[in-house]
Amino acid sequence: MRMYDIIKKKRDGEELTKEEINFFIKGYTDNKIPDYQVASLLMAIYFNKMNKRETLNLTKAMINSGETVDLSQISGTKVDKHSTGGVGDKTTIALAPMVAACGVPFVKMSGRGLGHTGGTLDKLESIKDFKVELSREEFVRISNEINIALCSQTANITPADKKLYSLRDVTATVENISLIASSIMSKKLAIGSDAIILDVKVGSGAFMKNLDNAISLAEEMVEIGTGFGRETIALVTNMDEPLGYAIGNGLEIKEAVETLQGKGPKDFYELCLFLGSKLLVLAKKTSNEKEGREMLVNTIKTGKAYKKLLELVKYQYGDTSYIEDTELLPKAKYVLKVESDKEGYIKSMNAEEIGKCALILGAGRDTKESEIDLSAGIVLNKKVDDKVKKGDVLAYIHGNNRGKVEEVKEKLKNIIDVGNKNKENKKLVYGEITNKKTKLF
Amino acid sequence: MRMYDIIKKKRDGEELTKEEINFFIKGYTDNKIPDYQVASLLMAIYFNKMNKRETLNLTKAMINSGETVDLSQISGTKVDKHSTGGVGDKTTIALAPMVAACGVPFVKMSGRGLGHTGGTLDKLESIKDFKVELSREEFVRISNEINIALCSQTANITPADKKLYSLRDVTATVENISLIASSIMSKKLAIGSDAIILDVKVGSGAFMKNLDNAISLAEEMVEIGTGFGRETIALVTNMDEPLGYAIGNGLEIKEAVETLQGKGPKDFYELCLFLGSKLLVLAKKTSNEKEGREMLVNTIKTGKAYKKLLELVKYQYGDTSYIEDTELLPKAKYVLKVESDKEGYIKSMNAEEIGKCALILGAGRDTKESEIDLSAGIVLNKKVDDKVKKGDVLAYIHGNNRGKVEEVKEKLKNIIDVGNKNKENKKLVYGEITNKKTKLF
Repeated sequence: MRMYDIIKKKRDGEELTKEEINFFIKGYTDNKIPDYQVASLLMAIYFNKMNKRETLNLTKAMINSGETVDLSQISGTKVDKHSTGGVGDKTTIALAPMVAACGVPFVKMSGRGLGHTGGTLDKLESIKDFKVELSREEFVRISNEINIALCSQTANITPADKKLYSLRDVTATVENISLIASSIMSKKLAIGSDAIILDVKVGSGAFMKNLDNAISLAEEMVEIGTGFGRETIALVTNMDEPLGYAIGNGLEIKEAVETLQGKGPKDFYELCLFLGSKLLVLAKKTSNEKEGREMLVNTIKTGKAYKKLLELVKYQYGDTSYIEDTELLPKAKYVLKVESDKEGYIKSMNAEEIGKCALILGAGRDTKESEIDLSAGIVLNKKVDDKVKKGDVLAYIHGNNRGKVEEVKEKLKNIIDVGNKNKENKKLVYGEITNKKTKLF
Repeated sequence: MRMYDIIKKKRDGEELTKEEINFFIKGYTDNKIPDYQVASLLMAIYFNKMNKRETLNLTKAMINSGETVDLSQISGTKVDKHSTGGVGDKTTIALAPMVAACGVPFVKMSGRGLGHTGGTLDKLESIKDFKVELSREEFVRISNEINIALCSQTANITPADKKLYSLRDVTATVENISLIASSIMSKKLAIGSDAIILDVKVGSGAFMKNLDNAISLAEEMVEIGTGFGRETIALVTNMDEPLGYAIGNGLEIKEAVETLQGKGPKDFYELCLFLGSKLLVLAKKTSNEKEGREMLVNTIKTGKAYKKLLELVKYQYGDTSYIEDTELLPKAKYVLKVESDKEGYIKSMNAEEIGKCALILGAGRDTKESEIDLSAGIVLNKKVDDKVKKGDVLAYIHGNNRGKVEEVKEKLKNIIDVGNKNKENKKLVYGEITNKKTKLF
């Protein structure tokens, strides 16, 4: 078998066999096939696509390129949630305790990615002494004792995907549904959870900017998950503006804690209930979402979800006083207001641009080596469709570098667009995709 | 400017600017842009094509990537002929003396390529002491004194094309008209001849297997040549069977000599007259091809063309006795006959397969480092449409390795297909392309 023939075959629009896909993924992982041949194959895939069988085989080959994690020692139906990434997305930190408080194990291993703000692991590290690196034994013990564990991946999961992703990133071959779906799903499927819920973000702050593409991606991922025998569903949700008010690691922990105390932002709390009620059904804790929703609301009302977070922090060696008094969380030296210079309604605020502002403040990573400033970020005071008067505070900027805080202030003034009232109300969830159907709301 | 954006632009079907093309070619030549980014751009070009402006700019950028050769010190209208490559194509060796004998300077610098048989330079080296490496001064002096010189490129011509071609070869991105045309034409245009005639081969032994593609390539190359202000025309000619009878370096020299002595194969002689008469018109030696043809026929009848070859060999330090007595040319140890085991007509003989047989015998180069066996090759005894009886000799195989000669004998029996008479007569020239029109015969 020759890589040249595989490139030519895909270039000419033919389907690649399982053996050809395995040959290419194994050869690339073992550094036997050079980057330039893979780059040309990726571009040929970009143009000629992969069909469902090829995508499934690609996913399988990527899983087999590295280690897999067996969760069978953890009792119960393990559920996993994955978001394709958005600005202010602290969902796991509130959702996990809510679901776990209902008796469903929510155990999650995350990688550290690049992005506008840190990932779940970075956010959790705002809590003093919180340990995200657990040994396998610790992870299993904690999961079994308290039904919740959030840790980093230590295993060498899907090395082929890591190499492929880096190459796609510099060769303009990221934007292909099969490549995106297999990349995400191989990482998810390498970890043996029983059910997966996918939160596919769409909008200005998401990787997918338009609804049709987001739905296609969701469908492809659900198909892959189902193909591997895992219960998989996907929701397509709004990322035209940040989720909740807080963007930035410590700031988002505070907002997650407030949400568990029943004082969270409406959109964020609603998304947790939406995803959570589906997870409870997937885990067969209840047969209908309405009841699941009530169970989740109850974990907030009774304080059980909040207590579950405290338990998580304690078991992962964190200082629980940081949760009990969020004023202890990292604080920025400067907090500047952005005020509206006119009256009207918030028409839009490009979430990606706001994410970039958070990056300027130091809340995210530009390169793998970047240090994150856990105190930095933005707290919105208004959201899309809110009414504003002249002089109203639109947002607060938290940062430790005066110049950058000022820079972001100027940017935010332009990003947060005040004008006439929008004709249509914004939506939180656009649709739900199962292996049986795609339902749009 | 970033290579990433250039890849994305072409991927998205947009036209690349001159600056972008220059950036990419310069960066790649200087090893500043990695192979994998160029590979993905090439595949994007494969799918989205390049328009005429882009192709012209690419050609220009490749010419500018290296040295150019100024022929202005050589007097007269310098003409150049280029073949896209075929089996048994010894045209330059007969055509150059014929044209030069008419008083038109035929001065040519060739590169050494890979191929089924050697290139013009390898063939000339079958003549004892023939020197293909001339200094600039020698080249100019010989050209001015005898109107003919055939030497190797010493200058660093189009290094960008060399890198690009190697990469295309392993990434399945060779087959794109713009890339092929710019590759050929950049090399031609870097050398300052006044008029160029392109012999675009089509058929089983050619790079272009079908007529439409060959015509498109011819049109693209003529357009580029014209765009650079050079008189350029192209002929599309038959390469479904080898040209003439001889394939192999010394064997082809013998055939070229015989042609100059008026005893050459019909198809080969005819092609020389066809190309030559057009060259004489391009060089304004005559106003019509008919007269040009008569002039060329005359160089054969009077022995002037043959004498011109002797002169060339002498001026380039070769032993002219090898021309006067072609029995002195390198001789193979074994000469085996291939006989027909049935009666009928030669239906076809795949020229590429015959070329590969010559390669097995050692007549060509597999890698840049391969040594060529100048005595090895094949001499056909029949050509397509010829009548054959059982026991008739179809071909003679010349080689120094008994096993390989036997191997080729078996192969040739299958390659030379004897059967019913073909319904249509074969054509030598399919069409002519000028910057004004495409004329099919």
